[in-house]
Amino acid sequence: MNEPDFIAALRALPLHPGARGLMDDCAVLTLGTETLVITHDMMAEGTHFRPDADMADVAWKLVATNLSDLAAKGAEPVGVLLGHILGRDDARFIEGLREALAAFDAPLLGGDTIAAAGPRALGLTAIGRATHKPVPERSGAQVGDGVWLTGPVGRAMLGFEGVPEHRAAFNRPSPRLTEGRALAPLVSAMMDVSDGLLLDALRMAEASGVTLALDPQAIPVADAKRLDQCIRWGDDYELLFTAPAAAALPVPAHRIGTVSARGPAPLLLGETPLGDPATLGYRHG
Amino acid sequence: MNEPDFIAALRALPLHPGARGLMDDCAVLTLGTETLVITHDMMAEGTHFRPDADMADVAWKLVATNLSDLAAKGAEPVGVLLGHILGRDDARFIEGLREALAAFDAPLLGGDTIAAAGPRALGLTAIGRATHKPVPERSGAQVGDGVWLTGPVGRAMLGFEGVPEHRAAFNRPSPRLTEGRALAPLVSAMMDVSDGLLLDALRMAEASGVTLALDPQAIPVADAKRLDQCIRWGDDYELLFTAPAAAALPVPAHRIGTVSARGPAPLLLGETPLGDPATLGYRHG
Repeated sequence: MNEPDFIAALRALPLHPGARGLMDDCAVLTLGTETLVITHDMMAEGTHFRPDADMADVAWKLVATNLSDLAAKGAEPVGVLLGHILGRDDARFIEGLREALAAFDAPLLGGDTIAAAGPRALGLTAIGRATHKPVPERSGAQVGDGVWLTGPVGRAMLGFEGVPEHRAAFNRPSPRLTEGRALAPLVSAMMDVSDGLLLDALRMAEASGVTLALDPQAIPVADAKRLDQCIRWGDDYELLFTAPAAAALPVPAHRIGTVSARGPAPLLLGETPLGDPATLGYRHG
Repeated sequence: MNEPDFIAALRALPLHPGARGLMDDCAVLTLGTETLVITHDMMAEGTHFRPDADMADVAWKLVATNLSDLAAKGAEPVGVLLGHILGRDDARFIEGLREALAAFDAPLLGGDTIAAAGPRALGLTAIGRATHKPVPERSGAQVGDGVWLTGPVGRAMLGFEGVPEHRAAFNRPSPRLTEGRALAPLVSAMMDVSDGLLLDALRMAEASGVTLALDPQAIPVADAKRLDQCIRWGDDYELLFTAPAAAALPVPAHRIGTVSARGPAPLLLGETPLGDPATLGYRHG
C-alpha cells in the first residue's frame, strides 16, 4: 500500500473522536477541564536524515518537528516519549536531545529503547496542554479571511544545500510555540508548514472546503530567485493560518493571500489554479 | 552505547515527575482530577518479529504489548497512536490492528506513516486512564507480602517453537486489562511479565529494595519439564504482583513466593540466590 491508501485504511478503523478523523496534525483529548494535544512523528535514516548526519541535530529535529505540531494547536509542551533504536553516535543523540528538551521546556516522560538491524527509524510522541479552546484546526478557514505565514519559507532548503547562514534552519528548526499560543485565540485555521507551503496550503483548503488564493509576490522566501522551489520545499516549520482580515495580530506575520469560496481549484497562486498534490511539495511514500 | 548505558544517559536528562525516573513501564500524568497512564513500545523486524511473520499478528502484538503495560497500572485504554513504516502486507497489518483495537476497546488517536528502507520498526503509544490512585508501581513491594502471578509462563515459548495449542499465546497475547483493574486497589507492587519471570521479578525486587523469594514448585509453567526455560522466556504478559499475604484476591492468581527483607541477592529461587540479569531472561541491546 502507498501512504494515501494506508491512511485511508486507518481512517476506516475505530477512531477516537479526538483523532479528528486523522485529518489533522494532532489528536485532541479532553479530560475533565483539561485538553491534551498529542502527536507522534517519526524520522528515518535515508528518508528524513542522511546516514552521516550529526545525531545531535537528528535528536533536536525529532523534538522540534513534533513540538511544531503542538505549536500549530496553540499548545504548550507537557513532555515527550522517545522510541529509540540504538546505533552510531548515541552520545551525540543524547546531547541534542538534552539541548532540545531544555530549549523548549519539554521534559522526558518515557519511551522505549531497542536494538534493530538496518537503517534506523526514531519516533517521538509529544504531549501538550491546550492553552485555548476550541483548539485550532486545519478545517476552519472562512471565506473572506486573510491568509498569513509567520516567516519565510525556503531557508531549510538553502540550509540543506549547505548555505552557511541557513544551515541551522535545516538542522535545528525552531517550533513556533510562542507564536502558536498567541495566535490560537484568533485564528480560524492553523497548521505548521512541514511538507512545503503549497502542499500544506492545499491541505488546509481541502479540509476547510474553500479556495486559498495566494499572492506569489507577497510570500516571504529565503531566495527570491527561486520562489517556485522555496514554496514547495518543506522543513521550515513556520505557521500558516487564516483569520478575519481585520484581525489585530499579536505577533509579526506576512499576509500572503485571501480565503475565497471554493472555485474549480483549491489553490490559486496568482492567476494559476493548483490542485495536483504531486506538483506541490514533498510527500513520503 | 548499549541499552543500559543509553537508558542511564536518558535518566540524566530533564525528566517529567510522571516519568517515575524511567524506572517503571509507564509514565503517569495527573491533570486536574484525571490521571493518565502513557507508554510507548516498539517492535522491530528481526528483533521482535520474524521477516515472514503474519503482519496481522505483528499489529495485534504491538497493541497487546503496549496495553499490557497499561494493565499493570490498572488503567483502562483511552486510545493509541501508531508509528508505521510502510512495507509488505500492510493490508494484513491493518486487519490485525482492527481486530486488536476492537478486542481491547482502544480506538486509534493518530500517529505517523512513513517510508523507509531496511527492516521495519513499528511504534505504538498507548494512553490509558487510571482507574485507581495511587497508580501501582514496581517499587512498592513490602516485607511479608505474598508474590503472585496471574497465569502460567512458558506458553509463548512453546508457541514460538510451533506447538499448535500455544501458538496464539505467542502471536496473539492478551493483556490482562480486567485483572489489572481488579487488582490495582490492593496490590503493593505490580508489573507485566514481558521479558521473563525471573528478570522482571528481579526488576521489581531492585525497585522495591527487597528480596523476592520464589518457590520454584509453585510457579505455574506451560511445560513442567522445562521449568528453567519457562521462567526465563518472555512474551507471556501475565501480571506479577505483591500484596498483603492475607489479601482477598478478586481474580484467580498463583501464589509463587514471599517478599523478604533485602538479603545478599535480590532474588531467591528456592535456596538459590540469583542476581545477574544476564542469566535471568531476555534483554535487548
